[in-house]
Amino acid sequence: MRSVLYTGSPTFTVVDGEPRPPGPGEVRIEVAYTGICGTDLHIRHGAMDQRVSRPAVIGHEMAGRIADLGEGVSGWAVGDPVTVVPLEWCGQCPACHAGHNHICHNLNFVGIDSPGSLQSSWTVSARLLARLPPGLPLRRAALVEPTAVAVHDVRRARIVPGEMVVVVGGGPIGLLVAQVAATDGADVLVLELDARRRAVAQRLGLSAVDPSGEDVGAVVADWTSGAGAAVAFEVSGSAAGVDIATRVLAARGRLVMVAIHSVPREVDLFRVFWRELSIIGARVYERDDVERAIDLVARGVVPADVLITRVVPIGRVNEALDALENGGEVKVLVDCQSDGDG
Amino acid sequence: MRSVLYTGSPTFTVVDGEPRPPGPGEVRIEVAYTGICGTDLHIRHGAMDQRVSRPAVIGHEMAGRIADLGEGVSGWAVGDPVTVVPLEWCGQCPACHAGHNHICHNLNFVGIDSPGSLQSSWTVSARLLARLPPGLPLRRAALVEPTAVAVHDVRRARIVPGEMVVVVGGGPIGLLVAQVAATDGADVLVLELDARRRAVAQRLGLSAVDPSGEDVGAVVADWTSGAGAAVAFEVSGSAAGVDIATRVLAARGRLVMVAIHSVPREVDLFRVFWRELSIIGARVYERDDVERAIDLVARGVVPADVLITRVVPIGRVNEALDALENGGEVKVLVDCQSDGDG
Repeated sequence: MRSVLYTGSPTFTVVDGEPRPPGPGEVRIEVAYTGICGTDLHIRHGAMDQRVSRPAVIGHEMAGRIADLGEGVSGWAVGDPVTVVPLEWCGQCPACHAGHNHICHNLNFVGIDSPGSLQSSWTVSARLLARLPPGLPLRRAALVEPTAVAVHDVRRARIVPGEMVVVVGGGPIGLLVAQVAATDGADVLVLELDARRRAVAQRLGLSAVDPSGEDVGAVVADWTSGAGAAVAFEVSGSAAGVDIATRVLAARGRLVMVAIHSVPREVDLFRVFWRELSIIGARVYERDDVERAIDLVARGVVPADVLITRVVPIGRVNEALDALENGGEVKVLVDCQSDGDG
Repeated sequence: MRSVLYTGSPTFTVVDGEPRPPGPGEVRIEVAYTGICGTDLHIRHGAMDQRVSRPAVIGHEMAGRIADLGEGVSGWAVGDPVTVVPLEWCGQCPACHAGHNHICHNLNFVGIDSPGSLQSSWTVSARLLARLPPGLPLRRAALVEPTAVAVHDVRRARIVPGEMVVVVGGGPIGLLVAQVAATDGADVLVLELDARRRAVAQRLGLSAVDPSGEDVGAVVADWTSGAGAAVAFEVSGSAAGVDIATRVLAARGRLVMVAIHSVPREVDLFRVFWRELSIIGARVYERDDVERAIDLVARGVVPADVLITRVVPIGRVNEALDALENGGEVKVLVDCQSDGDG
């Protein structure tokens, strides 16, 4: 088997090894594809070294097939197509007690805090498995995890059909949020600096505007007949994105905070007060979100083939990381079974 | 009649004049008491000169009796005890169309944008009247308007009985918010720098802590068994208050933004994301909030006599403004009928 090892910023190395046989309650998965996430780039930059032990196998967006079953695993068979829901909670903390175990105070995010899927063979707890429909190509199914993020974000916004929604940032998550919001009946405008990403948005049937080239406030005011947008999703992670998202909202508008802002941001709290806005944090997903994501990907409502702009063999994993980092790509996958030379 | 005129920062002058007879649809009110609001102090500092014409009669927390009826006014009689709901909306803007007329884009806040109640006789539209119960002393009824603010703030928080709530800032609005939240079944902790205000909180049966003398994070963690508070109300208007309110919240906690922050504040958006917090803007009140406020004041649930720490005759209005500004007071009223020498 082959594994990608993060040995310290910015080095990822591909190594050969032996699969770990599944212990009691575990399964071994032959990983077909692993998607590269913005978080994986943060890890590459060393920004998460406090959480990530080294050497580490990262990766948490994946699809594959069960290759081996450990003792006591029932309901699953070798060959079953699966994805892994990469959240393990403690069940003991106040968040778990309050029913919010997806934001457990002691959450183990598999692929960050413990070994992930950037390898050809992965042994994990069977409790984390989610079943994929038999006809769904595994390449497309690698989009289930980020789609679950988007489903959760949109659910937090409580969108009413017909509402006008601005998505600030048209990367993979932003475009998935836009697509899910549109599926829920919203009229969506994506703000994105990168022309290639805007082109993908347009291929998805979404309106997309370059916020550097337009007076966004005026564009949204015009689009909404002066009312402002009902919902904004901040997916850019930038100070400018926070400012725009706050500025474009209507009375009682909701701003869903999707992106990670590693430093405090200036927020126009006067406007929050004046227009009675809500700012709503949204993190990962709950099991229902994953089930809906599988359905949306399987039915093609989330058009995976438009969103996946590159697939790189595992042996050339650094090329995948570079491609995402250099801009222009939407979703970049690693083919975990093809050999190093692709 | 006597009127208090704001002629430009920081001057308020008491002048004699003639009452304006009510026009069609108007009533003339003999104003009994007008409360001084933090906004009135902002006006005194010239911070709202863009909105306040000069000379202006300000004041918007009041109770009085109808003294005269204009043409076409029905349902009201001379002598009726009333308060004025000081909001006039346009009915045409997107916020009004969406049913949020209390945050109308063109709101006329009576007593700021148009003449208010710091006078012995006040002529206003009968549409703004709210009826007071006959047995309610008018001095207490002057607290209806700030109580309506608190009722609205608490309603925006959707408090569930038993929830633990932190109120950051124990001035008049903070203490009213705390009292209403406690009435709704919350367990409330008030954070307030001023010892006299903390003493008033304690007389109301509320816990109160000096945030400068304690590690507030540790106090709240201890109080909530490590979970954090379900709700925080930011009523201090300070950067430190925003920081504390964000920091003390539990998973899915709600931060209600009550205070006016005239400059953008740094907000820990990472924590908003990580704990899936909500920040909820709350401004003024709706008609239902006013009706509930009247009921709470009339039943003594809001103990007006504890909250009113000083009453000053209209002729010595600057003394009332000074008293509120110098700290230590909670609610300061102006007696609009007593003569200048009190």
